[in-house]
Amino acid sequence: MQPATPTIPVAPARLSGEAARLACRGGAITGCTAGIADGYVQGNLAVLPADLAGEFLLFAQRNPKSCPVIGVSAPGERAIPELGADLDIATDVAGYRVWRDGAVVEERDAVADLWRDDLVAFVIGCSYSFEAAMAEDGLPLRHVEMGVRVPMYRTTIPCAPAGRFAGPMVVSMRPLTPAQAIRAVQITSRFPAVHGAPVHLGLPEAIGIRDIGRPDYGDPVPIAPGEIPVFWACGVTPQSVIAAVRPAFAITHAPGCMLITDRRNAEFAVL
Amino acid sequence: MQPATPTIPVAPARLSGEAARLACRGGAITGCTAGIADGYVQGNLAVLPADLAGEFLLFAQRNPKSCPVIGVSAPGERAIPELGADLDIATDVAGYRVWRDGAVVEERDAVADLWRDDLVAFVIGCSYSFEAAMAEDGLPLRHVEMGVRVPMYRTTIPCAPAGRFAGPMVVSMRPLTPAQAIRAVQITSRFPAVHGAPVHLGLPEAIGIRDIGRPDYGDPVPIAPGEIPVFWACGVTPQSVIAAVRPAFAITHAPGCMLITDRRNAEFAVL
Repeated sequence: MQPATPTIPVAPARLSGEAARLACRGGAITGCTAGIADGYVQGNLAVLPADLAGEFLLFAQRNPKSCPVIGVSAPGERAIPELGADLDIATDVAGYRVWRDGAVVEERDAVADLWRDDLVAFVIGCSYSFEAAMAEDGLPLRHVEMGVRVPMYRTTIPCAPAGRFAGPMVVSMRPLTPAQAIRAVQITSRFPAVHGAPVHLGLPEAIGIRDIGRPDYGDPVPIAPGEIPVFWACGVTPQSVIAAVRPAFAITHAPGCMLITDRRNAEFAVL
Repeated sequence: MQPATPTIPVAPARLSGEAARLACRGGAITGCTAGIADGYVQGNLAVLPADLAGEFLLFAQRNPKSCPVIGVSAPGERAIPELGADLDIATDVAGYRVWRDGAVVEERDAVADLWRDDLVAFVIGCSYSFEAAMAEDGLPLRHVEMGVRVPMYRTTIPCAPAGRFAGPMVVSMRPLTPAQAIRAVQITSRFPAVHGAPVHLGLPEAIGIRDIGRPDYGDPVPIAPGEIPVFWACGVTPQSVIAAVRPAFAITHAPGCMLITDRRNAEFAVL
């Protein structure tokens, strides 16, 4: 008798972007995509009817730190070739939220049956890319160490309005020592397509954050003595703004459940 | 009668590096060289006997943020061709300090009569270069606005020792809003040869500064509400360390009275 050939499963982190995306499509991967397909760009999703798409694109153009667009579908199309050769935006995201009149009405694994000829999909860069560069440099990521979601806060920093889209910037926060914060500015400045450099540090109240221990989204993380809070523009900003605009219909990703692309993080480094 | 031709003096800021240096040599310029020969690199000076020069160069190599060497003379030579074709380091600095046994014994305009065959001159990059880049970007420089010297502090950040040279880093401080501080990190990171990115920000006590209102060198400047102190490694560090080593003989520039070179600030940008 021959011994059984042992199965060696590929660790999720070692998957290619395409393999991970096809696993999302097939249902083998659902939920949070942090730690999957190391080195590949993941993206936030915002899907809007075409009559809002032009205004949203202008909003993104005016707010590149919170809404760095990395891919846009043609109206009604489910392909975004610049992000992946075999990509169906209605099935390949790890989790979807369906919005009606500005409220989430459903979370689900695919939205193919809801797709319409007038929908335009926007994919927006995500902090997973710059966090990978920080971790590679040895900088700590408190929320990753703790296994929780990054804390996020609505600020008093206004986004530049465009048509019906307006609202405050949402930021994510990572505690760092001052020397680490300086290094983090250098590292994340290389990635403007995935939020880029921090927008603020050290004085939460100056951007309207009254209680750093109570984030508006995600989970709180402790700031150790000798550390300061460092704030980056966050891809939750467009969801927050879409909620305020109250479109009759929209689709986004579910928090943490991203689109995994064929593009590599390193491609997005400007230097 | 012909009308007298009006004399149009060249503003000091418009002088070339060479013209400004020759004016220092001839005595037409003495004292602080801030605002002279815009766009040209100025440098700190440290002159040591050859028996200490090797150790000092190693110290500088190990502490590139506080001691970024941009030019070194051959022993006994007064030329530094990489910094200027017509350059005499014993006459061209705007002001000199003569040190004996670790103490300043004299300030003077030239040191040609004190020159010796065993002296080695080190020119070290200066914050004037990165301040020019900050000002060009519209960032405020409080000490320049106030017409005072930049505040400087001895810290508890240890320099990496080399032979007899050891001691704490001296830092200069500029107050900025958090968003300006982030921009300043980006801008000054381009200039590693002139101290580069800040070494600290926001928490003075974390680097041993007990009273931000009482600098160890230079003048105090106010920090406005909404601003944080941002700290850069300072070219006073080598003077502080030389004072501690107490060499029998040394020469430095007088604070603020720099060597003006033929090199342009832009040449020192790494990106």
